[in-house]
Amino acid sequence: MKNNKTFDKITVIGLGLIGSSICRALRKYEITKKVVGYDKDLDILRKVKDLNIVDLISQNLNESVIDSDIIFICTPVGSIPSVAKEIQSSVKWGAILTDTGSVKGSVCDFFKSNNFDGINVIPSHPVAGTEKSGPIFGFHELFIDRWCIFTPMKNASEQSINDLEKIWTVFGSKVEIMDSAHHDLVLAVTSHLPHLISYNIVGLANDIEKIKESDVIKYSAGGFRDFTRIASSNPIMWRDVFLNNKDAVIEILGRFIEDLSALQKAIRWEDGDFLEKKFKNTREIRNKIFSAGQGEFGEEKLNKIKEN
Amino acid sequence: MKNNKTFDKITVIGLGLIGSSICRALRKYEITKKVVGYDKDLDILRKVKDLNIVDLISQNLNESVIDSDIIFICTPVGSIPSVAKEIQSSVKWGAILTDTGSVKGSVCDFFKSNNFDGINVIPSHPVAGTEKSGPIFGFHELFIDRWCIFTPMKNASEQSINDLEKIWTVFGSKVEIMDSAHHDLVLAVTSHLPHLISYNIVGLANDIEKIKESDVIKYSAGGFRDFTRIASSNPIMWRDVFLNNKDAVIEILGRFIEDLSALQKAIRWEDGDFLEKKFKNTREIRNKIFSAGQGEFGEEKLNKIKEN
Repeated sequence: MKNNKTFDKITVIGLGLIGSSICRALRKYEITKKVVGYDKDLDILRKVKDLNIVDLISQNLNESVIDSDIIFICTPVGSIPSVAKEIQSSVKWGAILTDTGSVKGSVCDFFKSNNFDGINVIPSHPVAGTEKSGPIFGFHELFIDRWCIFTPMKNASEQSINDLEKIWTVFGSKVEIMDSAHHDLVLAVTSHLPHLISYNIVGLANDIEKIKESDVIKYSAGGFRDFTRIASSNPIMWRDVFLNNKDAVIEILGRFIEDLSALQKAIRWEDGDFLEKKFKNTREIRNKIFSAGQGEFGEEKLNKIKEN
Repeated sequence: MKNNKTFDKITVIGLGLIGSSICRALRKYEITKKVVGYDKDLDILRKVKDLNIVDLISQNLNESVIDSDIIFICTPVGSIPSVAKEIQSSVKWGAILTDTGSVKGSVCDFFKSNNFDGINVIPSHPVAGTEKSGPIFGFHELFIDRWCIFTPMKNASEQSINDLEKIWTVFGSKVEIMDSAHHDLVLAVTSHLPHLISYNIVGLANDIEKIKESDVIKYSAGGFRDFTRIASSNPIMWRDVFLNNKDAVIEILGRFIEDLSALQKAIRWEDGDFLEKKFKNTREIRNKIFSAGQGEFGEEKLNKIKEN
């Protein structure tokens, strides 16, 4: 694939931050002759039209996928099965059907227990994003230096997996194929728990009656501010993540609370050695994250890319 | 005070990130004729000498404060009382004695129960910092647009409070006078709990036997990365914070765990409405933090300042 409009038609369903960024990247890198965008929200469709990031806007889900070579479902993870079921009969034989949901077990279970014969189903998860929601915040550079995890169904052909991998590679991502259960456990630690904790601490600060909001804002540079970024992420998307990755999140959350109780006990009993030892262990990983090119936030990264 | 070297001598004890930034700002804004720096760690003293950010380096704590108009104690909060006690007899009549500890109750209790007559004791806390430690990472702009909280002792003269406030104002900070118990509660929420949570989640990721460190690093862009910044803060400083703000931290931690248990229960029982409602409530505060000029991290802020 030489970015020479290899494909005739690609459909993107759900035009939020991720879906709209995929539309932009598909056009930027000339992956296909036609990008069709569908969203059930008319307001979003209007914005996408104004932004001019697709070739055709569709208000009809089934029509939007007819003759498409590839269909990206970029809706909140809870609605992926119902969207897939609805479009199934309109998807052409041999097409690639993929998604971008942050949970893969529930999506794969759905595809396993439903017959999608003749369609190359490749559930996937680009580990990228910002705290912003909606099509106006998307940008084609969002996936650069990020990982995209594939959890392909057995029936997906090697050729189809290679084709999809090439697209993500052109977008700037690295692709890894993984078992969906392992994906969900790893992401529970690296993404889902961090979001839950952030929502919780920001919510707590709102609730404490002895502290004014203005105090929280003024002194947020002490650490609190770091949590507000991910606590301003899309509520619907994250509701769906927790409902669909329930088992792994509850397992990891249990361990988190256990460990937190040990820290609480050390504070109560003034065990400085225990605290110091725990705090020393956590310094190194940040350097490793930066060395691995995973250090910058979306907009910082974008600015850096634009500077070069 | 017109930045015209109003003072003859100012001593800074403890030359880490905060102490060394104070030294730089004192010189940059020409607050005093002479800045004297003391640290018990010879390696740090050597670095400070190389950096040329003080006029005189002292290896003798008591000597360093003789004839000083102002003494800043910038050591970890647990050692502030012992440092204050040791220098007490060498501090000149009428001098200002201040500190930069992140906990104020324990420091104020010490000063209340010890006789510092004739010295203007003004415990303080500049709510500023980065995750880096040591004198090479300090910079004079660190305090710009940040808040510095004073919890002055009764005996401190109005003049001395005004003088210290003017210095922090020249550094770019805004000053607020506060009761030490309220300070410790507000900071428990906005700073101490966020740090504890970050240390805990980063430690947890290290410990899970089914997940490789390389997985955590690769997929850290999903949210985890945000926590590694504050989890790489100075372990000794933070050990001391938790030991010295034990009561407020345990109170806030108790509420945090309660709220987290409610979220856990909602996930277990698949109560999507509850989750969505909670997640929606937390979006707005981030915008307010940015509007209040508290949005940028240390280095981002520095870059922005340098650009202008």
